[in-house]
Amino acid sequence: MLQQTINSIKPLHQEAMEEAQKHLDFLLKPQGSLGKLEDIARQMAGITGNVQNTLAKKMIIVGCSDNGIHEEGVAVTPQDVSWLIADCMVRGIAGVATLGRHAGADLRVIDLGLLKDVPTPGVVNRKIQRSTSNFAKQQAMTREEAIRAIEIGIEETNKAFDEGYDLVATGEVGIANTTTSSAMLYAFTGKSLDVLVGRGAGLDDAGLKLKKECIQQACELHKPDAADPIDVLAKVGGFDIACMAGTFLAAAARRKPVVMDGFISGVAALLAVRLCPEVKGYIFPSHGSAEPGTRVIFEELGMEPMLQMNMRLGEGTGAALAFHILDAAMYMMNNMGTFAHIGMA
Amino acid sequence: MLQQTINSIKPLHQEAMEEAQKHLDFLLKPQGSLGKLEDIARQMAGITGNVQNTLAKKMIIVGCSDNGIHEEGVAVTPQDVSWLIADCMVRGIAGVATLGRHAGADLRVIDLGLLKDVPTPGVVNRKIQRSTSNFAKQQAMTREEAIRAIEIGIEETNKAFDEGYDLVATGEVGIANTTTSSAMLYAFTGKSLDVLVGRGAGLDDAGLKLKKECIQQACELHKPDAADPIDVLAKVGGFDIACMAGTFLAAAARRKPVVMDGFISGVAALLAVRLCPEVKGYIFPSHGSAEPGTRVIFEELGMEPMLQMNMRLGEGTGAALAFHILDAAMYMMNNMGTFAHIGMA
Repeated sequence: MLQQTINSIKPLHQEAMEEAQKHLDFLLKPQGSLGKLEDIARQMAGITGNVQNTLAKKMIIVGCSDNGIHEEGVAVTPQDVSWLIADCMVRGIAGVATLGRHAGADLRVIDLGLLKDVPTPGVVNRKIQRSTSNFAKQQAMTREEAIRAIEIGIEETNKAFDEGYDLVATGEVGIANTTTSSAMLYAFTGKSLDVLVGRGAGLDDAGLKLKKECIQQACELHKPDAADPIDVLAKVGGFDIACMAGTFLAAAARRKPVVMDGFISGVAALLAVRLCPEVKGYIFPSHGSAEPGTRVIFEELGMEPMLQMNMRLGEGTGAALAFHILDAAMYMMNNMGTFAHIGMA
Repeated sequence: MLQQTINSIKPLHQEAMEEAQKHLDFLLKPQGSLGKLEDIARQMAGITGNVQNTLAKKMIIVGCSDNGIHEEGVAVTPQDVSWLIADCMVRGIAGVATLGRHAGADLRVIDLGLLKDVPTPGVVNRKIQRSTSNFAKQQAMTREEAIRAIEIGIEETNKAFDEGYDLVATGEVGIANTTTSSAMLYAFTGKSLDVLVGRGAGLDDAGLKLKKECIQQACELHKPDAADPIDVLAKVGGFDIACMAGTFLAAAARRKPVVMDGFISGVAALLAVRLCPEVKGYIFPSHGSAEPGTRVIFEELGMEPMLQMNMRLGEGTGAALAFHILDAAMYMMNNMGTFAHIGMA
């Protein structure tokens, strides 16, 4: 099913993008002067095939899982906080629930591997197992589990499109997932850990050093193959990242726009793009998070964030903010006056 | 009246900011992890004195004027476009009218010095004279006119607050106003013209060279006094910039938030802050525009843009986008769950 999804991903509609460019150049402004708003409108045309688009129904799809690597002491936050955040999401009081609601977005919270079940109803139960394994000792998951986790992301995202959603974004919950993300980014790029590893929710200097050592040793132990993205995911990744990669792939396969959140979401985007480079055209970046590795992701993807908010909460909160900007770009495209309005046809 | 306004500007409420910080630290997230959203909420508390705020009524106040320096060939756009843009604003089809409407903002378009009157009704007529003078030959305006133009901005902004607006932003119309802005920035900072002067709506290399020479020669001729902001404005500025400076001053005096747009708006903010440093606390930046001098303004003001959109349309379009982010920050502050919700009081 993963392979089927990848096979069905096609490039952007060039003709629709050219038509969109013509319309943009006919709007009442110097050509190109609305910058990324114009880029967004043009890309959206390439995605849907239509010059004018609306994004009425929006959803943030949140993959939740615990990470076995937590037991190495790479995160300041206790592991119980994972299910607690997921619980607060379905209760509507977590950050992404709040900022998502403000942006008119619904939330789908998916449990792929939380240690503890979420007591409040509303979480979609797609549990593969309770937490991944500690990749300091053995690989995080089997290859089959890695594929299964991506496919869960694909299935849940396809459901959203079947329900009429026009726009999705990726979010995540999983204490210690900046460690899995940095490890995957290290496996993919081989760059210095100094530019790939950050303090997460607030590690001190000793904790940061430990986190780097832990990643380095695990990659020496498992030797993840950068040319085989599933191998990287299985050895040092997480179910949450897999689920988000599934969302990116499903969106591209269904020709729908998908917004990337921050660092962890960015690693999932990179995973999806490594599986299928054409996915890139369907992704809209949102913010440059405070995690240092985010810069590397933007370089790798050849993208630039639209927002610089120094945010580092994750969950999908940056993507929720970007929804407003995407809406503004669509509104501009559909409502701004043209040179015809002033008699210059 | 200008001096009265300046005298009535007070610092931010420290106590309200501390209360806001306490609330922010009690929200369901690691401390500081919502970055600039938290900064915005805290600053807003300092402005109004209330921990929780809403920004129901928003207005973009647009100062319009022509600039005599246009006759030196420093802009690619014909001068007639000034009144045409103002006309499109009141017709609701210009960029700022469109993006403003999407952000729920009303527009007030003020004519301080357009060469031609705007045919469509709706423009507030506060015309001082038809265009400033060509500052390549004589100073742009008299000192009295400079003060009058700032006071018009103050009066029109005070009217907005009297009508119940909670939030204002600055916008402008005036072909050749990147030249007046760069000239003022040069007079204020003395930095290299290479980092202060850009291509405006699309100058070629020869045009850019001419623009720099024109600014340098005018500043040698008039010797604007950096320590006397009104002198700088009168000698090489514009009525549009003066009007926006008035909006910044009035907002600070009335303890209301004001959003800065891009480059030209930024020079007006700098003018206001040079007249009264306390104004800075009332300003929210929006985007980093494509004009190179914008970086210098952010350095001078000690601020960072929240949006990086490569926009260079002006009018107030970047500020309109930032309204969504300010709204999101207020919504977060008023609606996000606290640790009390999970029994951790």
